[in-house]
Formats: sequence, structure tokens, C-alpha cells
Amino acid sequence: MPNPSAAMLVVGDEILSGRTRDSNMHHLAMTLVEAGIDLVEVRIVPDDPDAIINAVRALSESCDHVFTSGGIGPTHDDITAENVARAFDLPIAIRGDAYGILETHYAAAGLDFNEARKRMARIPDGARLIENPVSAAPGFIIRNVHVMAGVPTVFKAMLANVLPGLAGGEKVLSETLRLECGEGDIACQLGKLAEKYPDLSFGSYPFRENGCYGTNIVVRGKSADQVEGAIDDLKTVVMN
Amino acid sequence: MPNPSAAMLVVGDEILSGRTRDSNMHHLAMTLVEAGIDLVEVRIVPDDPDAIINAVRALSESCDHVFTSGGIGPTHDDITAENVARAFDLPIAIRGDAYGILETHYAAAGLDFNEARKRMARIPDGARLIENPVSAAPGFIIRNVHVMAGVPTVFKAMLANVLPGLAGGEKVLSETLRLECGEGDIACQLGKLAEKYPDLSFGSYPFRENGCYGTNIVVRGKSADQVEGAIDDLKTVVMN
Repeated sequence: MPNPSAAMLVVGDEILSGRTRDSNMHHLAMTLVEAGIDLVEVRIVPDDPDAIINAVRALSESCDHVFTSGGIGPTHDDITAENVARAFDLPIAIRGDAYGILETHYAAAGLDFNEARKRMARIPDGARLIENPVSAAPGFIIRNVHVMAGVPTVFKAMLANVLPGLAGGEKVLSETLRLECGEGDIACQLGKLAEKYPDLSFGSYPFRENGCYGTNIVVRGKSADQVEGAIDDLKTVVMN
Repeated sequence: MPNPSAAMLVVGDEILSGRTRDSNMHHLAMTLVEAGIDLVEVRIVPDDPDAIINAVRALSESCDHVFTSGGIGPTHDDITAENVARAFDLPIAIRGDAYGILETHYAAAGLDFNEARKRMARIPDGARLIENPVSAAPGFIIRNVHVMAGVPTVFKAMLANVLPGLAGGEKVLSETLRLECGEGDIACQLGKLAEKYPDLSFGSYPFRENGCYGTNIVVRGKSADQVEGAIDDLKTVVMN
């Protein structure tokens, strides 16, 4: 059986302008591999209603799980929550439980719980909250879409909170063989191995180090025996 | 007049599995800002024919320029070139000029110009080559799609080669104001400023440093006077 599929939607002008370097995607990718969920697409879009709505609809339809990051803070350019709601034609309004969490948090911190911060209590109808142990403002899950913060510490904490509730598949194992030859030197044999092991994936990644070049071959699959067998075959090929 | 728009398509299982951390996107984003071209979408897809074909078609239609990275090497999983050709229903075959470049390169390097390496001379009908001063194998431009390598040094060199041929717009200027207050403390005023300056964009990015928290406000726009004016307004607001 194939593993469940996932997509990520990163929302934010700051990523597309190069101001901020996204790190959530890499964290999500590594976490999903461990959980046996295949990340099959990532999209990065600006803080634009139509861009968010279209991407949420497309990814929610094509994948089992969708994870969004960014755009759920208190400022005017944080428009992810309302546009995820619009993508599913759902109303969104300030909700009591989210409001209570924020009210308690700001009271304890001695900070003004102003109109801008109250926006963070807006939750689409029917969504479940995702706890935010870092800065209180919750994310939410609606249909198969997990709406989470862009701040990396918060994103990580929210992801850790939702993961146990997701049905995973078999973990994909990977093994790397480092070769001191060019990618092109091994490419023909690698192609033949890929045909011999149709359930495995073979990646080849050239590198340069201290003026020398080489290639890392990464073999990935769900069967440890097959991965090991392919690595052994590779070693035999290279030695001949 | 709005600036030309651009999209990026990153092709590669290794990015989606978390094995490799993409750096080309960030480089492209910063380079396009300088050139006055707005990066409006990024998609990351696996080494899968349909995923590549669909993304190339969608992005080529919605944006003025498309830049791809990855999947043009010598191995069996390098399938970007043939699927970009298929996206436009174009034939692809080994072409004399690309073949000559590679033949000369491998002869000089004393390396076998084998079948796998010859794959890198396959160019869709009607494409223009993009020079690769690092490892010879060329990229190509077909319609509005620039097909480039995934290896960061090669991607950078190819991008530098194609940029002078692209019509750019006005450079977007940006200025950052560092505030020692929470994002929510300034959000209401920021929203009002965004209304006052409809041609500018205002981003707000919370940070934590040495246990203190603060917010960087980034004002972006094409008019230096307006950006400066907004920053002055912001300073006034914060001091009151």
C-alpha cells in the first residue's frame, strides 16, 4: 500500500522576496519521512487571497494531508486563516476557546489584548485547534488542512502536536554510498539497478570537495533487505 | 506599470525527502529583487513526469518568466528536460551544438563520454542553450521557461548568464525598522499605515533575542520617498 501523501503550503511575501529563508519546509520534510508520510509537493505563495485560496483547494484535493505555514499572526498582512476558510466556503469568526487562551496568555504576560491580537482568535467553523505552547495563539485543522505558524519554533511545536493524530505509513529507509567518481561514470549502471529494483528509488548527488569530485548515491525504500541488496550490488559494480 | 512576474519550479525527490536543503530558491529570490522581477510562486515537485509537466504548464501560463532547477544531469532520475519538452508537445533529441560542448569537455578532462553523459545533449526543438561554465552540460530556454541545473554553483552561473536577457522592471526598495515591542503591540497602527500607503507593502516579523522579544518591520516599495516617509511615520507612532 502506498504511504499517505502530504503537501506543504508556505505563505509569505518575505520568503519570495528573499528576505527570510524558509526552514519549516526542511523540518517538515524530515519529520514526515520518519512518520511514513510522503511529501509530494510544496508551494510557496505571497500574502495574496486568490493565491492562498487556489493553492489550498488544489493541494487539499490532490493530497491526504496539507500543512500550511505563515500568515496567522496579528498584523494586517496575516490573511491565511480567513482565506483557508474561504477556500472551503466556511464562515470564520472569533471563537470562545481560542479567545480564552489568548486572553489568559496576554493577562499573564501583562500585555495589551488589543484588536490586532484578538484577530488571532478567528477560527473557521468546525475547525479543531492546534495548541501553541510557545506563544499561545493557536493553529487549527479544517478538513485535511493543518494551519500553522511561520515562526520556526512555533511551527515545530504545532507539528509535534498534530503528528500523533495522523495516520502514517511505513517509514522509508535510506542508505548512502559515497563514491569517488563522477555522476556520469556510474549513471549507466545505476539505471540498470533502478530497473532491477523497481520498488526502490535511486538518487545520485554529485559533490566537489577539496578540488576532487565524487557522487553520493542514495538508495531509498521500505524494505531494509532490498536497500541493503542494492547497496551491495552497487559496491560490486563500482569495484569492477 | 507592474514588474514582470516570475515563478520557480524546483525538481527533485531529494528536496522533498529532506535529504538536501534547497538553496537555489533563496538565491533566485534575492537576484530577482535586484532585477525588478517579482517572484510570485515557487513549486517543489518530485522526479515525476506528470508533476513536472503540470507544473511547467501552469507556471508558464501564469507568469512572465519560469526558472527550473534540478533534473538535467546524466542519471536515470534526471527527467526534467524531456518533460519540459512534453509540457509544450515538442520533440527532444541530441543536438549537435550541445553534443560538441560535452564532447570537448570530457575529452579535455580525460573522462569517458558515455551514453549517460550523452543524454545531457538532448535539447527540445527550438530551445536556446544556456552556457554552463562550471561543468559544461548546458541548460536551455524554451518559450518562457529557463531550464537550469540543481547544483548550486551551476544554477548561479546559469542564472547570471540569462539575467541580462530578461526585461526587468523597477527595483523594489526595502527598509527595515527594528522595534523592541511585540508584533501585536504595533499591529493596529501598522494596518493604518498600510492603508495610508497603498503602493507600499508592510511586513512584520517577530523575533526573540537573549530572552527579549521584538519585531522587525519591513517596508517595501518602488518609491524611495514613500518608503522613507512610511518609516518616519512608523518612528513617530512608536514614540507616542
